[in-house]
Amino acid sequence: MTIPNLVGAGLIVIGAGIGLGKIGGSAMEGIARQPEATGKIQTAMIIIAALLEGLAFGALFLGK
Amino acid sequence: MTIPNLVGAGLIVIGAGIGLGKIGGSAMEGIARQPEATGKIQTAMIIIAALLEGLAFGALFLGK
Amino acid sequence: MTIPNLVGAGLIVIGAGIGLGKIGGSAMEGIARQPEATGKIQTAMIIIAALLEGLAFGALFLGK
Amino acid sequence: MTIPNLVGAGLIVIGAGIGLGKIGGSAMEGIARQPEATGKIQTAMIIIAALLEGLAFGALFLGK
Amino acid sequence: MTIPNLVGAGLIVIGAGIGLGKIGGSAMEGIARQPEATGKIQTAMIIIAALLEGLAFGALFLGK
Repeated sequence: MTIPNLVGAGLIVIGAGIGLGKIGGSAMEGIARQPEATGKIQTAMIIIAALLEGLAFGALFLGK
Repeated sequence: MTIPNLVGAGLIVIGAGIGLGKIGGSAMEGIARQPEATGKIQTAMIIIAALLEGLAFGALFLGK
Repeated sequence: MTIPNLVGAGLIVIGAGIGLGKIGGSAMEGIARQPEATGKIQTAMIIIAALLEGLAFGALFLGK
Repeated sequence: MTIPNLVGAGLIVIGAGIGLGKIGGSAMEGIARQPEATGKIQTAMIIIAALLEGLAFGALFLGK
Repeated sequence: MTIPNLVGAGLIVIGAGIGLGKIGGSAMEGIARQPEATGKIQTAMIIIAALLEGLAFGALFLGK
């Protein structure tokens, strides 16, 4: 039995999808509730999304 | 037993589907609640969606 | 044991179904709540749906 | 052990069922809440459902 | 049977995605509700996210 590398890559994207989905979803809802806080919400969104994005790409490279 | 690469590609799309679904769904609801904030919501939606889209295509290429 | 490619294609459609379902469902609910925002909601819906649709077809071709 | 192609076809229909079910269900609820927005809701419903339907048939042909 | 390392890396990112998603999502909602507390919320968000990020990278390196 051989499990291709792409299955692992798929699990990485599932993890990033769960996380970025929750981060982005809450950001959208926050902007809709307080449009004047858009800048602050977007800054925080990009910080936390970059952490997860960096980890996902790191895992793609290091996990091979 | 051989698991085809396409199974891994499927997992990648499941991850992107979970994430883009949550991001897009919350964006729709936000626009419906505050139509005048459409521009701000759409900008944030595209930023976070691009991060996930880029990762998914990156995983498709790198994970092979 | 051999798993046919079509199983991977099925996982791709499950991912797209989860995502497009959430996007479309929220769009319907948004239009019902604010019918005058239909244009804005539909534009955002098509942007995010196109990202997921493009990825799903990309995965079908690249993942083989 | 061989997994027949039909299992993959089944997964495709599960994906389409999840998506079309959510899209159609929300459309019904939206029309029930705002009957005068029926036309707008139906247009959006057909756009997003066509995307998923097209992908499902594409996967059936390309995934073989 | 061989399970590639990348599958383990994928599980690491799923864990981090669940955690960072909840952290980031709640941070966005908090900033939207109290925009004047942005600094405090962001500091706490970065502390807790760094802990999870550090663990995930540690696992990637040490788990090999």
